[in-house]
Amino acid sequence: VLRQTEPGLCADPDLAVARALAPELRASGWKGRAVLRDGELIAVKAPGGRVLGLAVDLGTTNISGFLVDLEDGKTLAATGLENPQTIYGNDLISYASHIRRVPEGAAQLQQLAVDALNTLAGELCAACGLKPADIVEMTVAGNTMMHHLLLGLPVRHLSATPFTPALASAIDVKARELGIAVAPGAYVHLLPNIAGFVGGDHVAVLLASMGKSKRPVIAMDIGTNTEISLIAGGEVTSVSCPSGPAFEGGHIGCGMRAAVGAIEKVRVTATGVEVKTIENAPPVGICGSGVLDAVAQMVLAGIVDRRGTMHEGHPCVRDRDGVRELVLADKAAGGGNAVTFTQDDVRALQLAKAAIAAGTELLLQRAGLEAADLDRIIIAGAFGHYIDVASAIAVGLLPDLAPERFAQVGNAAGEGARQALVSRRRRARAQEIAGLARYVELAGSKAFLPAFSKRIGFAAPRRAEPISQETVETT
Amino acid sequence: VLRQTEPGLCADPDLAVARALAPELRASGWKGRAVLRDGELIAVKAPGGRVLGLAVDLGTTNISGFLVDLEDGKTLAATGLENPQTIYGNDLISYASHIRRVPEGAAQLQQLAVDALNTLAGELCAACGLKPADIVEMTVAGNTMMHHLLLGLPVRHLSATPFTPALASAIDVKARELGIAVAPGAYVHLLPNIAGFVGGDHVAVLLASMGKSKRPVIAMDIGTNTEISLIAGGEVTSVSCPSGPAFEGGHIGCGMRAAVGAIEKVRVTATGVEVKTIENAPPVGICGSGVLDAVAQMVLAGIVDRRGTMHEGHPCVRDRDGVRELVLADKAAGGGNAVTFTQDDVRALQLAKAAIAAGTELLLQRAGLEAADLDRIIIAGAFGHYIDVASAIAVGLLPDLAPERFAQVGNAAGEGARQALVSRRRRARAQEIAGLARYVELAGSKAFLPAFSKRIGFAAPRRAEPISQETVETT
Repeated sequence: VLRQTEPGLCADPDLAVARALAPELRASGWKGRAVLRDGELIAVKAPGGRVLGLAVDLGTTNISGFLVDLEDGKTLAATGLENPQTIYGNDLISYASHIRRVPEGAAQLQQLAVDALNTLAGELCAACGLKPADIVEMTVAGNTMMHHLLLGLPVRHLSATPFTPALASAIDVKARELGIAVAPGAYVHLLPNIAGFVGGDHVAVLLASMGKSKRPVIAMDIGTNTEISLIAGGEVTSVSCPSGPAFEGGHIGCGMRAAVGAIEKVRVTATGVEVKTIENAPPVGICGSGVLDAVAQMVLAGIVDRRGTMHEGHPCVRDRDGVRELVLADKAAGGGNAVTFTQDDVRALQLAKAAIAAGTELLLQRAGLEAADLDRIIIAGAFGHYIDVASAIAVGLLPDLAPERFAQVGNAAGEGARQALVSRRRRARAQEIAGLARYVELAGSKAFLPAFSKRIGFAAPRRAEPISQETVETT
Repeated sequence: VLRQTEPGLCADPDLAVARALAPELRASGWKGRAVLRDGELIAVKAPGGRVLGLAVDLGTTNISGFLVDLEDGKTLAATGLENPQTIYGNDLISYASHIRRVPEGAAQLQQLAVDALNTLAGELCAACGLKPADIVEMTVAGNTMMHHLLLGLPVRHLSATPFTPALASAIDVKARELGIAVAPGAYVHLLPNIAGFVGGDHVAVLLASMGKSKRPVIAMDIGTNTEISLIAGGEVTSVSCPSGPAFEGGHIGCGMRAAVGAIEKVRVTATGVEVKTIENAPPVGICGSGVLDAVAQMVLAGIVDRRGTMHEGHPCVRDRDGVRELVLADKAAGGGNAVTFTQDDVRALQLAKAAIAAGTELLLQRAGLEAADLDRIIIAGAFGHYIDVASAIAVGLLPDLAPERFAQVGNAAGEGARQALVSRRRRARAQEIAGLARYVELAGSKAFLPAFSKRIGFAAPRRAEPISQETVETT
């Protein structure tokens, strides 16, 4: 993206750079390197000065940042922080309703995003003994709502059908125009959006993970909204599934985010339940991968039937106040919280997995394909990184393919943002992908509701063998 | 400079445009034209919307503006206003000293310049029933100090040797970054500077007036500083002469700017003095062209000798309080002010004309040329438009060439700004001229002082014939 040269003022200077240029060059004895961007002089570095970039995955609940040395493309530091916008809610719908209720709501959310980016830049630089003022270029991959809020674009049409983004194409903005305190001449490049519910974060996922396979590939980023793209025959078709917050621990009785003490693995044996918590701490609640495991294990154990109804008979299943639940952790036993998984929690998981499975099926149907035709299923995102694929298959969230066909690629959105930061060619490729992608609105598809209904239940357990007795670590 | 197309969002949108885009397109039924600038979407016009440009000659004392329809390049309106920065003085030295004295001085001057540009845009648009919000592109040609003040560039090194500009090359700045209230996505293009005392206004003069002559040409813009360029053999060499404020009526006892009641023409006859004032109003004072005429006529009449000393003998020459003076207008006679021209005023004119003549001579000397080799002498600027060339030759300000070799081109800086506004090719040409021009610092030239000293006096009157008895209008 950037070019460096001896300063000769042949380039168009940025105004802020021009203001500081003469004093700075005087201070450095008229020695320095010019940082050019599309022919614009965006910084002048004193000898030894660093030329840094910051790639950001701006998620609804979490923000990840990657500090990169733009001279050799190496990542110097990476970190994450909770999106402070979550003080107004945990999902896009909460943000949209805050904006509708409060006149300055959008400005508040924008300021929180800007504050977070400044914090991120400060923390990453501090970790390396560097200064945010040396960051001359940023990329941000966010969903369409995050993108709009950061830019101060109108979001009214994002939260109502037909969910039209105010801006889909990539945009370059001076960081200072957004209040981001990096180099005065720095730009922020925001990756393009595909649609109102398929944003730059998904484009970044596709950029980072699409690869060159000639055979059909599906890429998905599981979250409150699950974006799924089918890449087949040179075409990209994308949907966004309203999967709800179950995978982030939301709308689950004892649900919590993936933090210390969250139950992340569950094994139901014939005689009891074994759980593993994050950092093996006393159990506090259950996070997304635990939710998936719990339901999968109950299905495999026959506790949950094909319609999703929980049945008695297992020693850990009980009825309390008329609600049937599986006891995952007993307060008495460990010292943590009592954690249970209720019939309602099973229903929440059913809605989520059915939406994703129906979205996947619809994409395959439209292309005349079946799951078996897929070369790979790429699962991006933090949640996707930690799930047990076998559990996801067991509940019907993922198609029943061999394990090697699944690639759990972690934070591909962040990796895509990093690639777009260091490479003009990758940035152009992101724009190409976004332009290529056709968005299919599930709410407007007659085939969605039947597919969803068909997927709401569970298949009969594949395995006739008894439930694994393999011991997992217990708290 | 601009390209228009159907909006397809293929262009990089400006942030402010992106913010307004969706609501505006909704309002116009998704019809509109996109205004592109170097691939950036800087405006979207509803059907029938105008695409306007504003070219500005930002002078130390006067500001001229030209409102242009960018779709056909036609000038819709032109106007001028006094530069409100003059509340801090009448020349660059006053501005520089204000900035040194007052911490927020530069910011005050910048704000005044911005206010003036907004006033200019408002007045020009109001005259045509149009809106400043339809102005999508501006060009500004100003001297280096005006350029720096408008941009908020440091000016410390402009007012001390070696008078280095903080920025010489052309620069494009978002109008909103300067506080100029035109279209949200509009840019301001500032023409490049050649040196600390040869600014974008002189580049604009050269752009508008250089022509294609193969023979040597001199272009000058006479003012407090007189920029002179010699264009010869494919090269441009520029000097700035410290000509002082005499031509703007400054440092002249009864001096005034060229306004109603200013004596602009003077004829000395054997028996008296005839004057013409602007708009034939009762005389208030004397402006630059009158100063030039008064001295020329006194030289031709033998009242002023070769050394510049005024002699008695003419009925209108008198001594008052020990100061010799020529009475131009008597309070008793007309009803205006008594206006006289003193020995000190002659000295002020001598300094001014000697500086310009020496600068011209030095340029010619360096190129191995003589005045007679010049194809043309282009005289730009308001003052240059109104002077009597014969008077300028008589005092030795201009070389003694045939009248047809002089071209009084008026506001060539404004015309250059207009050309740079409507044509990308002309804009590139301005940058080329600025890059081509070599600046010669007169203060650093050993040849300057001798040349100046040689030119401080007056030549003997060429003409032996008696002073013209031709009657000019008198007040």
